[in-house]
Amino acid sequence: MKFINKYKEHIIINPLMRGGIVPEEVQAQLCQEGWLEVGYSLCHDCLEGRSSLVSKPPVKSFLGNVAEFFGGDAAEHTFGCRGAQFAVMKTVGDYCKEEDLEPVIVVDPNSHYSTNIAAEMAGLRVVEPPHTGYPEYKVTAEAFEDKIEEVGRPALVAVTHADPYFGNIAPVEEIGKICEERDIPYMVNAAYTAGVAPVNLKKMKAQFLTVSAHKSMSSLAPLGYVVTTYEWSKKIFATSKSKAEWTGRIFGKKLPNLFGCSIGGVPVISSMLSFDYVKERVKHWDEELSKINSFVDRLEEIGDGDIMLLGERPKRHHLLHFETPVFWDISQKHKRRGFFLAEHMIKRKIVGLHKGLSKHIKLSVYGLTQEEIDRVLEAFREAVKLREKLN
Amino acid sequence: MKFINKYKEHIIINPLMRGGIVPEEVQAQLCQEGWLEVGYSLCHDCLEGRSSLVSKPPVKSFLGNVAEFFGGDAAEHTFGCRGAQFAVMKTVGDYCKEEDLEPVIVVDPNSHYSTNIAAEMAGLRVVEPPHTGYPEYKVTAEAFEDKIEEVGRPALVAVTHADPYFGNIAPVEEIGKICEERDIPYMVNAAYTAGVAPVNLKKMKAQFLTVSAHKSMSSLAPLGYVVTTYEWSKKIFATSKSKAEWTGRIFGKKLPNLFGCSIGGVPVISSMLSFDYVKERVKHWDEELSKINSFVDRLEEIGDGDIMLLGERPKRHHLLHFETPVFWDISQKHKRRGFFLAEHMIKRKIVGLHKGLSKHIKLSVYGLTQEEIDRVLEAFREAVKLREKLN
Repeated sequence: MKFINKYKEHIIINPLMRGGIVPEEVQAQLCQEGWLEVGYSLCHDCLEGRSSLVSKPPVKSFLGNVAEFFGGDAAEHTFGCRGAQFAVMKTVGDYCKEEDLEPVIVVDPNSHYSTNIAAEMAGLRVVEPPHTGYPEYKVTAEAFEDKIEEVGRPALVAVTHADPYFGNIAPVEEIGKICEERDIPYMVNAAYTAGVAPVNLKKMKAQFLTVSAHKSMSSLAPLGYVVTTYEWSKKIFATSKSKAEWTGRIFGKKLPNLFGCSIGGVPVISSMLSFDYVKERVKHWDEELSKINSFVDRLEEIGDGDIMLLGERPKRHHLLHFETPVFWDISQKHKRRGFFLAEHMIKRKIVGLHKGLSKHIKLSVYGLTQEEIDRVLEAFREAVKLREKLN
Repeated sequence: MKFINKYKEHIIINPLMRGGIVPEEVQAQLCQEGWLEVGYSLCHDCLEGRSSLVSKPPVKSFLGNVAEFFGGDAAEHTFGCRGAQFAVMKTVGDYCKEEDLEPVIVVDPNSHYSTNIAAEMAGLRVVEPPHTGYPEYKVTAEAFEDKIEEVGRPALVAVTHADPYFGNIAPVEEIGKICEERDIPYMVNAAYTAGVAPVNLKKMKAQFLTVSAHKSMSSLAPLGYVVTTYEWSKKIFATSKSKAEWTGRIFGKKLPNLFGCSIGGVPVISSMLSFDYVKERVKHWDEELSKINSFVDRLEEIGDGDIMLLGERPKRHHLLHFETPVFWDISQKHKRRGFFLAEHMIKRKIVGLHKGLSKHIKLSVYGLTQEEIDRVLEAFREAVKLREKLN
């Protein structure tokens, strides 16, 4: 089977990917150190049968560092942030069964689909507070409070820190306070923030933080982390209780909520190698935000009223969602229809706009140099000019 | 965080790893083609929101090829073979709930822990037929038949094709016949065989085949496949039925038994790039087996009665388990105690024996050249000689 990477050396503006770009030094180490020789290259010195307990390379202490960096007491690596969310939902679902609670959870209306799927997998019913609608689509603490009151006692409140639709930052600390007052377990899905922006579980008063290493921690996929408090770690990281009937085998080091052992492999190695870089860049989040807001202004200027940011303003996150009637107009006359825009960008070695969409676009310039940002803006400027040409 | 790969350019004899060695050309392509630049490098041209539907690179058709290669109708990639087994167990568990069946499954007594953990995750109780005990530990179709009769109607029968303890090949076709007669769903865990030996779901009369790409298909971790029949694919690969309450969002392309989308990333790319190599090597399985059996004879000869193969003989799989009283004797007098043997091998750039164990060893020489096999035997010969030196 032969295929190439068509987008090698392109500027990536897909907002899913910008926080996951693997530093060149890390890529080089993965290649030169032989870490790609075998999937299990993390496991040569595994003594206890669980990757998170490996000390050479230092996975165990690294997970302690991850927990500390995000303000938690304990962390485990998972199969992506979806695996982390599943572990939380499964813990909550099992708790509902034990305590005979109604399996209803309150989830923000801008949640990533993986939150809803994890709930579905764990047999939890999702109810949603409303957002504020067009054009900001904001989630408010008041709406959460109302919905919680309406439900009575949800088994969990789950909030997406920066949402995948608009890149709005949810009022996670206020919601945390509401949950704390009512003693409701609280999960913050920080897939789009943890690793790019400062994120602290304790400050949010959360019990669970779910993180995507390949989205926001410059790591290969699939990899996530679930970070929790000391108290909840005993539940979510409980070891296996099963005993095989005839052999009597038990699996005492294995964590059922994480498939026994979450393996890790090259994604974990990449995350360990990227971690210092990630910690450093988070310190410069404010500088990134001012670059991002200036990009928004410049792109709207190019659109001259026909490119408009959706979601909150000023931006407090790098995921940008624009309404783009100018590109919709062009798509109506262009022979490539809605595909023209993504293809126009790819011709300029800029990849990441969803192919086929022109009415709305989502993108990110997080971590790009000013020169690269200028190239992106220039490409959009040229795209806008197509309107005149086609008229 | 700085650390190196201590085992770069070592001969790997860990039986978990031999089938997972990534061909050098594939490693080179991963590095040179920029596939490591971002975790989501598979997803640039994702149009439908699920990695298994991506056509550039051709993931969708590749999964069709995987299904066909293993004699099934449909396949999806998963987070390791454990993810594949979980998808099966979850499907069976949900089916038990719907049909009000007792959630009891029959699993072979040599199963990998991930089978038992997946059952635990899905709320299924495991019962085991006995094996034949020391020194062969064989699983028989008769023992399965008896256990199935005893249970009445198990929700699933699960058998490990080659087991992780002794590398015995289970009588999967006979057990398949027994299940077919009774219309009991049947899963074969081929983590240690699919990709090294010929494996065919239909020949086994199985409904589910679970595969580990990083164990036996020369791929990076974590990656597995679940292969199934047309009929069961509708259940195990059923799309999401959840609807978010207020927004009304649905997630129609997402597969809840596989976390919505199993991402894939670099492991899937590595598996696609390795697939031709894997298909070719399976044709040479008989040659590997004769190399393996000749290795067994030579190692036992070196042990002169104090190194003895456990499990069936002749070997029909590459995982070798030896009783090694000679190394146990040495460990009693050696200053490094039980660690001496793994360390002795590592000094000779041979990695893969479990550190600390000397009474029993597990290893594999699958895929090694004759020269490498000779180096491994020479290292064991030198280790055996330590007995005289310490006496």
